[in-house]
Amino acid sequence: MISFVAPSGTGKTTLVEAVIARLTDLGYRVAAVKHDAHRIELDTEGKDSWRLRAAGAVDTLLVGQNQIAWMGAVDGGPSLDSLVELFCGSADLIVVEGFRSAGLDTIRVRRPEADDPSWTPPDPERVVATLHPGETDAAVDLLVNRYLTA
Amino acid sequence: MISFVAPSGTGKTTLVEAVIARLTDLGYRVAAVKHDAHRIELDTEGKDSWRLRAAGAVDTLLVGQNQIAWMGAVDGGPSLDSLVELFCGSADLIVVEGFRSAGLDTIRVRRPEADDPSWTPPDPERVVATLHPGETDAAVDLLVNRYLTA
Repeated sequence: MISFVAPSGTGKTTLVEAVIARLTDLGYRVAAVKHDAHRIELDTEGKDSWRLRAAGAVDTLLVGQNQIAWMGAVDGGPSLDSLVELFCGSADLIVVEGFRSAGLDTIRVRRPEADDPSWTPPDPERVVATLHPGETDAAVDLLVNRYLTA
Repeated sequence: MISFVAPSGTGKTTLVEAVIARLTDLGYRVAAVKHDAHRIELDTEGKDSWRLRAAGAVDTLLVGQNQIAWMGAVDGGPSLDSLVELFCGSADLIVVEGFRSAGLDTIRVRRPEADDPSWTPPDPERVVATLHPGETDAAVDLLVNRYLTA
């Protein structure tokens, strides 16, 4: 598991996207996990799932063949480890955006002109590389050598 | 865990909604699980999650505080039991729509005028009651007595 960390607007997703495409071309199975506290909006008023939540369900879980949506009322929810174990079991590498508190190996993505002085950098002890969002080759080389070569 | 089973258009979700509301009023924590093979559409072209999938990610997992979305490329996906264990651990009762092959205790919801001759009824050995969608009281009594009374 490797985490990509950067302030918003740096181009982190662009790098993650390029890295996944390259590793997939090389034959690896990559899973992507994104922390998205504010932007997930799975529910729509009037839909069945909305009606079940409005009726008071503490957890609402929609299960499709290759898609799952969970909306919960509990604090915190399942841990990253338990989620990854359940959902990403077949992957060779799990690429994570966010989850800074999980103590993962971290690639810091940095574009100096996009630096935000109010942003707290990741723990230096977890940072395995600091890369520009255009450095796809360097990121792929690092990931293959460090995590994907037996 | 109790499954509600009916052909589409019977009023099953209306009964499930009323049952959840009543049990919640009685102080129980109810989770709702819905099998929704065809209708979940979590992804939108151009969003970050769509970009990660388009790049080749075998699993894409979005994690928010109280919401999770998973889009996978594997066959079948996690089992109902493992999902329920992870997502519905705090519930007193788990109300399921669908999942007929899971061998759960089943309430068959039936409105004779909405019978569909092409619909296969559930295994009679699993059916603990057959109820009209308006029979909220009977459903609540059965669930409290059978699953919620120590």
